[in-house]
Amino acid sequence: MKWCRFQSGRTTAYGIIDDTTVTEVTGNPFESHTKTATIAQLSRVKLLVPVIPPTFYAAGVNYREHVTEMAHRRGVKPEFPPNADVGYRANNALVPTDEPIVIPKDATDLVQYEGELVVVIGKQCKKVSEAQALDYVFGYTIGNDVSERTWQRGDRTFWRGKNTDTFKPMGPWIVTGLNPDDLRVTIRLNGKEMFTYAIKDAIFGVRQFISRMSQYLTLYPGDVLWMGTDGATENMKDGDVVEVEVPGIGVLRNPVVKER
Amino acid sequence: MKWCRFQSGRTTAYGIIDDTTVTEVTGNPFESHTKTATIAQLSRVKLLVPVIPPTFYAAGVNYREHVTEMAHRRGVKPEFPPNADVGYRANNALVPTDEPIVIPKDATDLVQYEGELVVVIGKQCKKVSEAQALDYVFGYTIGNDVSERTWQRGDRTFWRGKNTDTFKPMGPWIVTGLNPDDLRVTIRLNGKEMFTYAIKDAIFGVRQFISRMSQYLTLYPGDVLWMGTDGATENMKDGDVVEVEVPGIGVLRNPVVKER
Repeated sequence: MKWCRFQSGRTTAYGIIDDTTVTEVTGNPFESHTKTATIAQLSRVKLLVPVIPPTFYAAGVNYREHVTEMAHRRGVKPEFPPNADVGYRANNALVPTDEPIVIPKDATDLVQYEGELVVVIGKQCKKVSEAQALDYVFGYTIGNDVSERTWQRGDRTFWRGKNTDTFKPMGPWIVTGLNPDDLRVTIRLNGKEMFTYAIKDAIFGVRQFISRMSQYLTLYPGDVLWMGTDGATENMKDGDVVEVEVPGIGVLRNPVVKER
Repeated sequence: MKWCRFQSGRTTAYGIIDDTTVTEVTGNPFESHTKTATIAQLSRVKLLVPVIPPTFYAAGVNYREHVTEMAHRRGVKPEFPPNADVGYRANNALVPTDEPIVIPKDATDLVQYEGELVVVIGKQCKKVSEAQALDYVFGYTIGNDVSERTWQRGDRTFWRGKNTDTFKPMGPWIVTGLNPDDLRVTIRLNGKEMFTYAIKDAIFGVRQFISRMSQYLTLYPGDVLWMGTDGATENMKDGDVVEVEVPGIGVLRNPVVKER
């Protein structure tokens, strides 16, 4: 099943996508909801960020080649994380597919994409095992963890390096019923494939993160967990278009503009 | 004006506190709202966390004596932050006044309080000056940034060190019309005063944080900014009661229990 959030005229609602149409739904995907009689053409609605998370989790460094390549560029030794210690991102930075990533005037050239799988939690959970973990997943979407590397390295926290407005494209929609072990992520810049990787090559998988997090934290419906990216990442500049594709989900596509 | 969120029977609502009563309000404090005719005794309602923030910001290290004392204990040189680089905390950890702080079974003895002033944003803002910054503040409440120091130092992120469920007491309510420069924070453990400090002694003040954050981030109504704590902090154990008082706001009081 394919769930979206969309705007059509003055209405903002969740919807279920069937092929080329969206059926408006009252309520939300995680709790009780009812299909309405309102059906729109998918091409005629504006897709929104598919869920506004109560808490926005991010695995951060979670793929070997990404860790190795990024360390190599900085002339330091790669350090792999010893545990599935999750990080955070912020809702102010979320934008849907097709909306621009805006590079601030004073950013350096090192504004880079990170194409990621996004796990959407469907049911409240605490202290679940790895074997049970996927039972609490609602579905999957796609994220682009845009990062200004100079700020990321120089500031005391990741606040503007990772969470500047528009730095967290997420979408286009949420797909249920997938097995994360089967998924791949492909990143394209201006139509050129930059990198492709398999989700199952993660240092810590979806089951491990959810289980470990839930030993201390209650996860809630709508919480999102971004799984990290693999490979080297490259700079984006004004006029570029970046796409993150996960076959089985879709394509998250965002133009890049520099603030003037 | 004193705003709370409360539960009374099956109703969860915002309310306005006058002396010993709460008037139920429809809507929310930041947008349109209307007083209802429902008035309850404050002592007979359950106070909830006064706002669930869209984004939960925390100044982190922001007072000189806290930085110096904590560095001294670890045998390292104190390092003061060069800029108002904000951090994040997570909504799963929020609990209201009077609810227990639950120390996980496998936590070390180093579970410590940090009594803080909390700024509640009232109006959306981007790129505001320090002179304008307080115009976007709705009011102030109190927070206790409970921290498991072993996890805080050893993990790759602050996820469980700072955001274990119940580690972020916030409340008891929000008070409007205050000048942050006039406020003091006093922390008591089992009735004994542990530390007291003036908000204006912060390394970076409320105006500086809001202005700097807003150069890159849009702040939204209901976002909270915890301002950091001063002084050394001490361990809390099963059976303790910790109070954070800000005269002009009130007292945030939480019992401490160890998970069994």
